[in-house]
Amino acid sequence: MRQPAHGGNLAWAAATAGCSPGAIVDFSASISPLGPPYSILSAIELQLGNIRHYPDPNYIELRNALSLYHNLSPEWILPGNGSAELLTLAGRDLAEFAATVLVTPAFGDYFRSLNAYDAKVLEFPLCVSRHLSSVDCVLSGILDKSKLNGNNGIIINNPHNPTGVLFSREDILPLLKDFALVVVDEAFMDFLPPQQEQSLIPLVQDYPNLVVLRSLTKFYSLPGLRIGYVIANPERLRRWGCWRDPWSVNTLAEVAAIAALRDKEFQAKTWAWLPPAREKLFRGLSQIKGLRPFEGAANFLLVESEESVLRLQEKLLKQHRLLIRDCLSFSQLGDRFFRVAVRSESDNQRLIDALVDS
Amino acid sequence: MRQPAHGGNLAWAAATAGCSPGAIVDFSASISPLGPPYSILSAIELQLGNIRHYPDPNYIELRNALSLYHNLSPEWILPGNGSAELLTLAGRDLAEFAATVLVTPAFGDYFRSLNAYDAKVLEFPLCVSRHLSSVDCVLSGILDKSKLNGNNGIIINNPHNPTGVLFSREDILPLLKDFALVVVDEAFMDFLPPQQEQSLIPLVQDYPNLVVLRSLTKFYSLPGLRIGYVIANPERLRRWGCWRDPWSVNTLAEVAAIAALRDKEFQAKTWAWLPPAREKLFRGLSQIKGLRPFEGAANFLLVESEESVLRLQEKLLKQHRLLIRDCLSFSQLGDRFFRVAVRSESDNQRLIDALVDS
Repeated sequence: MRQPAHGGNLAWAAATAGCSPGAIVDFSASISPLGPPYSILSAIELQLGNIRHYPDPNYIELRNALSLYHNLSPEWILPGNGSAELLTLAGRDLAEFAATVLVTPAFGDYFRSLNAYDAKVLEFPLCVSRHLSSVDCVLSGILDKSKLNGNNGIIINNPHNPTGVLFSREDILPLLKDFALVVVDEAFMDFLPPQQEQSLIPLVQDYPNLVVLRSLTKFYSLPGLRIGYVIANPERLRRWGCWRDPWSVNTLAEVAAIAALRDKEFQAKTWAWLPPAREKLFRGLSQIKGLRPFEGAANFLLVESEESVLRLQEKLLKQHRLLIRDCLSFSQLGDRFFRVAVRSESDNQRLIDALVDS
Repeated sequence: MRQPAHGGNLAWAAATAGCSPGAIVDFSASISPLGPPYSILSAIELQLGNIRHYPDPNYIELRNALSLYHNLSPEWILPGNGSAELLTLAGRDLAEFAATVLVTPAFGDYFRSLNAYDAKVLEFPLCVSRHLSSVDCVLSGILDKSKLNGNNGIIINNPHNPTGVLFSREDILPLLKDFALVVVDEAFMDFLPPQQEQSLIPLVQDYPNLVVLRSLTKFYSLPGLRIGYVIANPERLRRWGCWRDPWSVNTLAEVAAIAALRDKEFQAKTWAWLPPAREKLFRGLSQIKGLRPFEGAANFLLVESEESVLRLQEKLLKQHRLLIRDCLSFSQLGDRFFRVAVRSESDNQRLIDALVDS
């Protein structure tokens, strides 16, 4: 059995480990281990009877809830069938320009969405080296402008997947002058506590060339339900709305999102859990010979390994039923890197113990 | 409050009637009143815990279930986030041709999906006249080929919405020779009992220029969940798959669809209910002065009215909390037609009584 694409890997892992998918501890998907919260599950159950009606094509209730959450008028907000749907629409806008810069290693679906509209891609690599324990995160330094001609777009992921680097608002700001369209994928930004986050949402009204993608599925553990949103100029969003059908967000995702945004207790719990759990996992990984984790701001850590990760991945699966994310789909990284989600204290310890044992 | 687009009309209706949306009897959406069946609701509840995982991007279980249902290999089948998502992808293919023919009156989202890719539209009207009690359904007669130059596409809806006309397989067959791409939207075909249905699915392996769109949301009452599929040449489906993100069907829609296809009891119940219920509703409407219903093969009836339908619609809402579908969005029909879904015997009788009273 070949390992399938992102999202289908649990079935592959279970087959490799010889157990049921439920018996695998999944460090490969960067989903919070704390959710989905009860508030969301009960909102979905209450709404089940309403799947017999079409969703509201204007998603007024959800857009109002997001409007309140971000203190921004609803016409600046468009919900999507996961932020992945909105990324595809962004790809169509980006294809209008001479080229689109990707800061690599980059999430594979960025390439897919750009290829879908024959957009030209320029890769600008972050410095991810075995000789550095952190990543060069000064964007201005990596953007060799001599490579760029005419009007260009850029997709930037903040915090960056898979390195975990958090760019500051000030790092990104100059891009808004240099690029005709700046798409900032903030799929993991909500894992940052409010006083540390670096979202560009507050700038969106000042820059018609700024598009911010957000996901609700990682923080609230809902990737199966598909819910994300984009914040951008209303005129752009109206155009995007005509490029897709009017009911793309399902009714249950809509109520789940509304419940999620209101669940301040779950948000506080997540922000209290993550930093110490990540710090402890980082320390544990640092102490293992042959491994070098990178400091990260999100709910996952990138780890460099002296030995091939594929062998390690297989061993962890067969002997311990633990699934780590190899980084082969990030072409720049090859087989000497893996990524792990931060999970519960006991799961994280189980991973550390298994790695020590390997 | 202005009446909103398709899907948002229940809130508008409730505001007009001065009641809660739940108090409105909705004849405007052509959704089965029998569902969603228990089998689906319980499959969803069982799967709720799995929304924490990404959907399988290959949708293997669902495609296998559809494969079994249609006796067709899974690579000919692509599930979608409602058939509306797939219609948009069809619009992109259709935009490659000189023009796309729409048999009008046509579902508004056909125009949207074609406009999304700047496809040229040619309208070929069905003869829907106040002087006829049925619709001219000989397709060959309406297709004035002198209007067509070069390679063209066509979208045809079978059974046709809003007239309810069922084209035979033989009616459509010649189009496969005349058109470079034939998209047959069979959103309502499953309402036809197996011995009467005229699906083109059995022909799909013989015609690479044939695309069949199917919905599961009307027959099983799931429009809020978003689930449809397309049956077409595997090469076309691979291309379409790259034009959208890999997780566009949510996990709950996937399990609902699998449960739906297996629920033979619900299918039999629907086929037993619909013909006599539709016939009785037709007879009731025929006996009302000033109204002329059209014979229809699906779960709705088109009705021509001597007086303006907007006044009638408002009266039915305010006095009876009954919502009928005006046909203003079908530009050809204007304000003298309305459409009603076939509902339960008591609901249908309530509509007849209210119309007699109007």
